[in-house]
Amino acid sequence: MRRREFNSRLMAAAAGAAMFPWSNAAPAGSPIPEYTINPQRLRASLEELAQFGRNPQGGVTRVAWTQADIDGRRFVMEKLMPAVGLKARVDPAGSIYGRREGKENLPVILFGSHIDTVPEAGIFDGALGTLSAIEIMRTLQERKISTRHPLECVIWSNEEGTHYGRGLFGSRAVVGDFEAGEFEEKDEQGVPIRAAVASIGGDLARIKEALRKPGEIAAYLELHIEQGGILDRAGVPVGVVEGIVGIVRYQAVVTGEANHAGTTPMPGRRDALVAAARLVIAVQEETTRDAGRQVGTVGKLSVAPGAPNIIPGRVEFVIELRDLSMEKISGIFQRIRKRADEIAASSGTRISMTPTSTHLPAPATPWVRDAIANEAANAGFKTMTLPSGAGHDAQMIARVAPMGMIFVPSVGGISHSPKEMTRWDDAANGCEVLYRTILAIDKR
Amino acid sequence: MRRREFNSRLMAAAAGAAMFPWSNAAPAGSPIPEYTINPQRLRASLEELAQFGRNPQGGVTRVAWTQADIDGRRFVMEKLMPAVGLKARVDPAGSIYGRREGKENLPVILFGSHIDTVPEAGIFDGALGTLSAIEIMRTLQERKISTRHPLECVIWSNEEGTHYGRGLFGSRAVVGDFEAGEFEEKDEQGVPIRAAVASIGGDLARIKEALRKPGEIAAYLELHIEQGGILDRAGVPVGVVEGIVGIVRYQAVVTGEANHAGTTPMPGRRDALVAAARLVIAVQEETTRDAGRQVGTVGKLSVAPGAPNIIPGRVEFVIELRDLSMEKISGIFQRIRKRADEIAASSGTRISMTPTSTHLPAPATPWVRDAIANEAANAGFKTMTLPSGAGHDAQMIARVAPMGMIFVPSVGGISHSPKEMTRWDDAANGCEVLYRTILAIDKR
Repeated sequence: MRRREFNSRLMAAAAGAAMFPWSNAAPAGSPIPEYTINPQRLRASLEELAQFGRNPQGGVTRVAWTQADIDGRRFVMEKLMPAVGLKARVDPAGSIYGRREGKENLPVILFGSHIDTVPEAGIFDGALGTLSAIEIMRTLQERKISTRHPLECVIWSNEEGTHYGRGLFGSRAVVGDFEAGEFEEKDEQGVPIRAAVASIGGDLARIKEALRKPGEIAAYLELHIEQGGILDRAGVPVGVVEGIVGIVRYQAVVTGEANHAGTTPMPGRRDALVAAARLVIAVQEETTRDAGRQVGTVGKLSVAPGAPNIIPGRVEFVIELRDLSMEKISGIFQRIRKRADEIAASSGTRISMTPTSTHLPAPATPWVRDAIANEAANAGFKTMTLPSGAGHDAQMIARVAPMGMIFVPSVGGISHSPKEMTRWDDAANGCEVLYRTILAIDKR
Repeated sequence: MRRREFNSRLMAAAAGAAMFPWSNAAPAGSPIPEYTINPQRLRASLEELAQFGRNPQGGVTRVAWTQADIDGRRFVMEKLMPAVGLKARVDPAGSIYGRREGKENLPVILFGSHIDTVPEAGIFDGALGTLSAIEIMRTLQERKISTRHPLECVIWSNEEGTHYGRGLFGSRAVVGDFEAGEFEEKDEQGVPIRAAVASIGGDLARIKEALRKPGEIAAYLELHIEQGGILDRAGVPVGVVEGIVGIVRYQAVVTGEANHAGTTPMPGRRDALVAAARLVIAVQEETTRDAGRQVGTVGKLSVAPGAPNIIPGRVEFVIELRDLSMEKISGIFQRIRKRADEIAASSGTRISMTPTSTHLPAPATPWVRDAIANEAANAGFKTMTLPSGAGHDAQMIARVAPMGMIFVPSVGGISHSPKEMTRWDDAANGCEVLYRTILAIDKR
């Protein structure tokens, strides 16, 4: 899950305060009698990768394009991939591909995730999907299984976006979704993004070569930990992702009148914070009015002038709404807008709400979802269908290819923290479902 | 009114947005047939003082102990005071006294205000009370009136507290109310407070000589503009101040759980901002539940972690309650505390509220209030009794002497802004009431 979506340092602190009794809990999925993939080998590779950027206090810091990330990438490219007969290829964005040819002239089945992390992260976010992809390649090799389609495992470049602020870098290169001026940016050390990408073997001058056209990819699959704790609480081992939610943000500005908090009588006040407080509550109420998994959050809010003895004259905040349906988001916003108008009228304030960013939902492709659900059931796992509230590289690839994601439980929903934990059985179960789904899609 | 109580720059901006139709309004008090004091002379001295620290865009910036303040003080000490037969004396805190002896061996009647301002201030806050005191000395001189009591006019040092952050400096010296380490402070230019006070003729080594004992002062009187707009709206020319309100501040901390705004379902959230919003509304509701002029404000609030995509885990804010009655403040706080407990229980958050500062109310002395009210009535003015929601030097002097304050309207309640305006007739009326009150108290 990418950085732009999350502030890891603060989240790590928050997670430290969380109180989930996870250390003694049983995994959501029991081990199955016979894995096709090798759970011990998957675990060993996850533990080995976790040495790169390892923090003394636990967890890893493997921020994209830093030395720890470069070391982790070399481990994957020079040790893991050759061991399974794959030759690593770095695309112009720095994403790593490993290709296994198929028997027929068919589009590729692509699967993978990322190995970059936020600072002080856990060892599963991204790494599980990546190393499962490689474990699957090894399983196929061991079992001497030839597929009809060529297969590619992929390690996306800078998914988290801790570095240079914008994530999903590698997958955005696949669809050419860059912001104006993005390639001119420098990091805090003054290193231009071109140089950073070059340091991992990419080349922004050739970035268009990273593009993939519709039809080139038969399906994209990604296994990832589920970061909301939904699977963990439900005790369900495998999540079939409905899609990645759309995210719409609105900048709300409440304008009242700053005035002396001692001399200004209560009746005449136009207190921007009291009005904003009513609107914050309205966001929660209107978001939860209908059934469903939609979420609405006010996470950032500032008060001006911001002194204890001055009635707030201006409050600015960000309303973020997420759902798989843009229609639902729009309906919730309309109701919030109506509430805002009522609040403004009754409080003598003005309230503006301006959309500042819109990320459209990326629904998973129905037949890919069905394939995942069927293969999980065939392997004996209970499944649950759920949206991904977080962003993933899969949302970009969905623009040019059929897409599906598999979630496994993360204990307590904790991620971006050294306390992030997925039980080894749950990790293996996800890898097994991914393996079986790839073969099912290959036979399709 | 002091800086610690107010942020002038932001207030000036807020005042610019205010929409009071004051330019065509009539003064609250009509001119009376015969003033004892000289309204034209009062106006001329206010306009002349306004040249010191004058801003090109209007208003004045005469921050305490800066060159503009020093120039203004010299104007008062070297021009105005000698012209009325007064020899200026600077006390160790830098306050300026001018003494006129009485016929009897009686305690002094003290009256005055301040001439320092916040940045980009108006020309009446402080200056009106100060120059009225000098106008009164001139009137007594012209009319060859001898009083029983000695009279002293006073110009308090650094009332606003823009410089060195703490106001009421001169009046606090009278009662010895300094904070630990206050004399060791330096300003932004690194100038120690001792040097700044020395630059205006004070001497912190002798600060104890500024103390006045109970019994030394027969009464302290201060004329000031009314900064809440109450007199202006009511069309009443003279306010008789009941007292200066007590101010109690509480630091409120709402602790919820920071979490991912995309992946965390609405039902399980412990959103600190939603809980804080409910409490902000509760502060307003509980403050206004009873009749009266009590005020309750949340002016400062911060949200952590403070990102659009993270559910707030912690919100801190300051609740400020003001009233003339500590019992009333305490009752309101108890109700807010109860509401906070309910909000915490229903939202899964913890809410702590800790008193961080308490300034006790300073009630005006009843017989001084009566004297003001009687003399205003004798002069033909309607009066209104009202609290001062802002702090004034009078609140310090009230600890050692009978105290009373006279308010005159400030249009729209605007102050600490170049738009601050008191009509000349209203200014003269206040000066006249102060004059008559001094003589009435002298005869008492």
